[in-house]
Amino acid sequence: MKLKPCVAATSTLLVLAAALPAAAQFSRPESAVKYRKAAMTMMGNHMGRLGGMAKGSVAFDANVAAANADLIATLSKLPYAAFVEGTAGTDKGSAKANIWTERAKFDEAARLFQNEASRLAAAARSGNVDQFKSAFGNTSKACDSCHDSFQNQ
Amino acid sequence: MKLKPCVAATSTLLVLAAALPAAAQFSRPESAVKYRKAAMTMMGNHMGRLGGMAKGSVAFDANVAAANADLIATLSKLPYAAFVEGTAGTDKGSAKANIWTERAKFDEAARLFQNEASRLAAAARSGNVDQFKSAFGNTSKACDSCHDSFQNQ
Repeated sequence: MKLKPCVAATSTLLVLAAALPAAAQFSRPESAVKYRKAAMTMMGNHMGRLGGMAKGSVAFDANVAAANADLIATLSKLPYAAFVEGTAGTDKGSAKANIWTERAKFDEAARLFQNEASRLAAAARSGNVDQFKSAFGNTSKACDSCHDSFQNQ
Repeated sequence: MKLKPCVAATSTLLVLAAALPAAAQFSRPESAVKYRKAAMTMMGNHMGRLGGMAKGSVAFDANVAAANADLIATLSKLPYAAFVEGTAGTDKGSAKANIWTERAKFDEAARLFQNEASRLAAAARSGNVDQFKSAFGNTSKACDSCHDSFQNQ
């Protein structure tokens, strides 16, 4: 695997989030749903990889934890543009319609999660396992809180 | 959206790729399949966002192109650990069994794509639209070549 330059820096991610209206990024509503589910699947997987370290069943490794948390922080910026109007569902795991009737509350929940994910990456990198466990708990709570409000259970 | 530290740097991604045996990262084979499909979905979407600029139907914007290409380069490291034994399929889009009988060839195709994705990010950042178009073409070819050999069509 070749070395490559530092990617997904702040400035480029801000560009990515701001460059296009949400609907313009997806050719069809189904594409938006598929995309946001993909981002959530990946975040869930990498949160799961951190879960063992947070629970203490796997030895804490700051580098591994930071790599996973960095990726979660990067991915945390991506799904929200894909919550385009008209893509609510009723199945378990699908988006509830109140995302669009309470969009400000939804956006705030997204920002909270993004902030917690950034803090998780910093805590992992610090090498302090207690800070990491605390930040992991806060990030998990941010996931759950948003899902409880805006996802069909 | 708050500023956050530069994420997904080379060292942490190398750690992520190398830290665990592939099977240990997924609780079940189905989880591995879902994860790799999610990574491919996201890469396909961001390649699509670059396609208009590469074809000239959308004005080239180096920052937007670099943001998308950086993300593709980051994601390009992730799906391959999820090609765990016993997860070949027969449906359209699924993994062909020759991934595991020709693993060295598959790994080489993965490396080629990862390298082209890194070059695409550098070309986008250069601001030279011709370099970007050339690198986009090479990256697309790397996608197609691997799919032609190892994905059920």
